[in-house]
Amino acid sequence: MDLGKRSLALHQKKRGKISIQSKVSLKTKTDISLAYTPGVGAVSAAIGKNKKLSWQLTNRANQVAIVSDGTAVLGLGDLGPEAAMPVMEGKSAIFKEMADIDAIPLCVDTKDPEKIIEFCRLIEPSFGGINLEDISAPRCFEILARLEKELSIPVFHDDQDGAAIIVLAALINACRLTKRRLNKIKVVINGAGAAGLAIAKILIKAGVGDLILLDTIGAICRGRERMNSQKAVIARITNRKRFKGQLREALVGADVFIGVSCGNLVEASMIKSMKPKPIVFAMANPVPEIMPEVAKKAGAAIVGTGRSDFDNQINNALVFPGIFRGLLDNKIKKVTDKMKIGVAEAIAHSLKPRSDKILPLLIEKKTTTVITKYLKNNL
Amino acid sequence: MDLGKRSLALHQKKRGKISIQSKVSLKTKTDISLAYTPGVGAVSAAIGKNKKLSWQLTNRANQVAIVSDGTAVLGLGDLGPEAAMPVMEGKSAIFKEMADIDAIPLCVDTKDPEKIIEFCRLIEPSFGGINLEDISAPRCFEILARLEKELSIPVFHDDQDGAAIIVLAALINACRLTKRRLNKIKVVINGAGAAGLAIAKILIKAGVGDLILLDTIGAICRGRERMNSQKAVIARITNRKRFKGQLREALVGADVFIGVSCGNLVEASMIKSMKPKPIVFAMANPVPEIMPEVAKKAGAAIVGTGRSDFDNQINNALVFPGIFRGLLDNKIKKVTDKMKIGVAEAIAHSLKPRSDKILPLLIEKKTTTVITKYLKNNL
Repeated sequence: MDLGKRSLALHQKKRGKISIQSKVSLKTKTDISLAYTPGVGAVSAAIGKNKKLSWQLTNRANQVAIVSDGTAVLGLGDLGPEAAMPVMEGKSAIFKEMADIDAIPLCVDTKDPEKIIEFCRLIEPSFGGINLEDISAPRCFEILARLEKELSIPVFHDDQDGAAIIVLAALINACRLTKRRLNKIKVVINGAGAAGLAIAKILIKAGVGDLILLDTIGAICRGRERMNSQKAVIARITNRKRFKGQLREALVGADVFIGVSCGNLVEASMIKSMKPKPIVFAMANPVPEIMPEVAKKAGAAIVGTGRSDFDNQINNALVFPGIFRGLLDNKIKKVTDKMKIGVAEAIAHSLKPRSDKILPLLIEKKTTTVITKYLKNNL
Repeated sequence: MDLGKRSLALHQKKRGKISIQSKVSLKTKTDISLAYTPGVGAVSAAIGKNKKLSWQLTNRANQVAIVSDGTAVLGLGDLGPEAAMPVMEGKSAIFKEMADIDAIPLCVDTKDPEKIIEFCRLIEPSFGGINLEDISAPRCFEILARLEKELSIPVFHDDQDGAAIIVLAALINACRLTKRRLNKIKVVINGAGAAGLAIAKILIKAGVGDLILLDTIGAICRGRERMNSQKAVIARITNRKRFKGQLREALVGADVFIGVSCGNLVEASMIKSMKPKPIVFAMANPVPEIMPEVAKKAGAAIVGTGRSDFDNQINNALVFPGIFRGLLDNKIKKVTDKMKIGVAEAIAHSLKPRSDKILPLLIEKKTTTVITKYLKNNL
């Protein structure tokens, strides 16, 4: 039975993946008098006088909202909020397992950025942070920027920031293994959604000089038509040679392919046209841009995907639990570019990379500690 | 140490009362491939095609949102959303303990009924039902009425419906014990907020003929000034003799006092002025309208409060877990008056009442079954 069918069977049996657990006993009259009325009146009164006490007297300091509108569910597109729930429940289970964080999936029935922003503003008193997930570009950029400005709790867009950090970490190690330097390589990114744009920005910040980003029309290039404001910004800092063409031509002579687009877009011949021993990160989910065995057969030295059933999983799930643990524990309000690059370097140098293991495994669980240690030491 | 101080210490130590628990294992690569990518892609795709599958493949069918704006926290008033969190976490813990329901506290930063309605509309895809809590009157009436119309999942306002059901159950048994009949008694209710109005309505429906409801101005009476639309409705069906006065005069010759107002409003002399062996439900939280020992000394035959540390706790916590278990399991969309009265009778007849035990105890946990059985058999 394939993974999809097995996963459907598991979900049908478990009817979802998370539940609530009480941290207090409710067995005796006294238990209830302390957890509930009348005792809890004193707790509410105390917070009523000093709102900051909610960080100590409720679960808020360990509680994150996972907010999605279901417009970009995995690589499957706009499936709606109901369909986003299984993914968000999976993230919640990973939050708990990897970083002991209580994350609540809130999939909302709107595509209006103003309503999503207002929704996040409304839930602020109940949460220590907000993790935006699977909200399609370009709406996600405005939503994140506005929330970072308007809220007093940290807001993280996993598909932007998480993807950027983990791809940079993977690239650092792939370069170590293939004796490349970030400032000497040619990188081609296919897909200019939330992840593609964020990855492009962080790679440029980290020193990559030659970078072409493509969307469904072709290479993003200064002066091109049909670009949103985010693409116009990226056009000014990437594609120095003003290449105008499609993915196939862009890949000729490239060192690195990064796919955050759709399944099965890349053929073996395209890998063969790259520099010798190229690096291929085919991260479309659940079907990668090119299957790992095909890429390797075509000469790729290092191949990564977003999936947990292949070697070299490059997935934000390695990042978001540790990032939020660090944000919550150190009361950090905003994840800066410097933090993102620092965290990526810390993850990369937390292991001795091999071509079939450029990143720590999710199940090793050590990455949370690597990230929190870095954030704590670099406040 | 008093209960308030002990409760503060407990909350400080536990840092809140609920946490998330994963229902799936995440120990191996296969575990993650099934709970998360790539396997979960098939689950999202299935729900994307048929939204109804979210009731089987996610936790939605067992998941309730507890929504409050913190404007009527216990009997303490408008303390704000942060201060409502400890109460809602307590309710969540009770939901889990009593009915195995996963209830998520969502305390929202607005007092605008339109925004609260919109908020509930937005979260509908993530939940099986919505439990409104501690939202002040009269806003709560419009919010509940609108949501019952506009949402496809059940919405329950605990402070209205829960209070009405449990007070009727308590009154049925107090009448059995003191040989009174509902249609022969004079009832005085002090407090015309969410609970007071809902209790008045259900008692009239259940057959009480002589009922006076008072707010801070005095008795609610046809033609009185300064009444919201809800009070104007209640004025037409209560206070037949058009009594115009304050609580002290209203209580003279009454069989039953029901307090859902503020602490320490009722004196011993007022109890003495009632009919012999009166019934006194002093349910203001955390401080009752009159302390039980004072009421008893003044002649009260049956005394109940909202608190768990006295005999005869009359608290909606006995009701909301079972009601939601029944709503979710039987896919009931709306709680009708007939259901409310039926559930109250079922609770009342689930025990042989004594003057110090007119209702089942919360810790006995049997009331959930009593309610779900009634709802299932009376679909």
